[in-house]
Amino acid sequence: MTTMETTKTRERGPRNGVDTPTLFATLDAVKAQPDLAKFQFRVTNRWVKGTRSRSRVEPFQGAGGEQRHKAEYEYDADHPAVLVGADDGPTPVEFVLHALAACLTAGLANIAAARGITLTEVRSTVEGDIDLRGLLGISKDVRNGYERIRVSFDVKGDASPAELQALVEQSKNRSAVFDVITNRVPVEIEVRA
Amino acid sequence: MTTMETTKTRERGPRNGVDTPTLFATLDAVKAQPDLAKFQFRVTNRWVKGTRSRSRVEPFQGAGGEQRHKAEYEYDADHPAVLVGADDGPTPVEFVLHALAACLTAGLANIAAARGITLTEVRSTVEGDIDLRGLLGISKDVRNGYERIRVSFDVKGDASPAELQALVEQSKNRSAVFDVITNRVPVEIEVRA
Repeated sequence: MTTMETTKTRERGPRNGVDTPTLFATLDAVKAQPDLAKFQFRVTNRWVKGTRSRSRVEPFQGAGGEQRHKAEYEYDADHPAVLVGADDGPTPVEFVLHALAACLTAGLANIAAARGITLTEVRSTVEGDIDLRGLLGISKDVRNGYERIRVSFDVKGDASPAELQALVEQSKNRSAVFDVITNRVPVEIEVRA
Repeated sequence: MTTMETTKTRERGPRNGVDTPTLFATLDAVKAQPDLAKFQFRVTNRWVKGTRSRSRVEPFQGAGGEQRHKAEYEYDADHPAVLVGADDGPTPVEFVLHALAACLTAGLANIAAARGITLTEVRSTVEGDIDLRGLLGISKDVRNGYERIRVSFDVKGDASPAELQALVEQSKNRSAVFDVITNRVPVEIEVRA
């Protein structure tokens, strides 16, 4: 959503379950008071057993204060049996694929609403290729993480194929998770032991 | 887990819920047949309404064949109310923090078992700072994703503080999700519309 777009589509009402007027009002509020845009998300995790752990999504900072999700969210992750885990949850790397699909899709719905496009269906498949010789320490020439990720979208709505494709393109251009995966984020690790 | 370590600790039994002998046997199998290490993880996602979508973790390829988790996993994600979402799930970026904590913790448990260290507690907190002016398209000088992520571990077990700290260090060095976040992964997006 560029500024031009915002101005052009300012008159539009809610669409796709997106409250577009409130979204535009939020953009205006953040433009006037940039500190509202500073967010901090937080997760706590505890080891359960073997390669299994459980994370809890914690309250987050943003919009000028401490915010709580309306529900409590906890998620298990584990390694699969073929990697000598108990398979008591998806692998951590699968959650990365979920995050990417969900981020691109949420943005797409917002952008469609802002552009006055009604969506009828959005489906995607995300595939991540990984050679485990990296993380198993078997080969120094193989990276630990995904070598590549492919996302395949099916988008249906009341616009031309080119306009629907442009929604995905713009969503990619504004996606937090796409940025995290395709660009570097510095990670600091501290240990108390 | 370097080769030297593997050799040194080969006699050790299961520990921390990690079946260390089978883990070492798996390493040997992959060394002998590197194609076993080629994995592909997959998630499908469908848009629900507004910024909410739901992902399903699909069967994955690896260890020479198609693998199924022992359970079905589906996860919702949404934008929070302060971002004009319905808050019907955590945000996509929170799942990234979960993935990071879970990946580092799983690796830590494996490495501790391989080193003969019994863990009694592993807890972590992950915080991600993000300035939403990037993804909202308000400032070109602000990135879309996290500016930085901090992980704070508390590790307890029958080893010295230095040995426990070294577990986290080695887990970081072998973590798939740490690599995805701190290094670039190419992402290809294809759209059918």
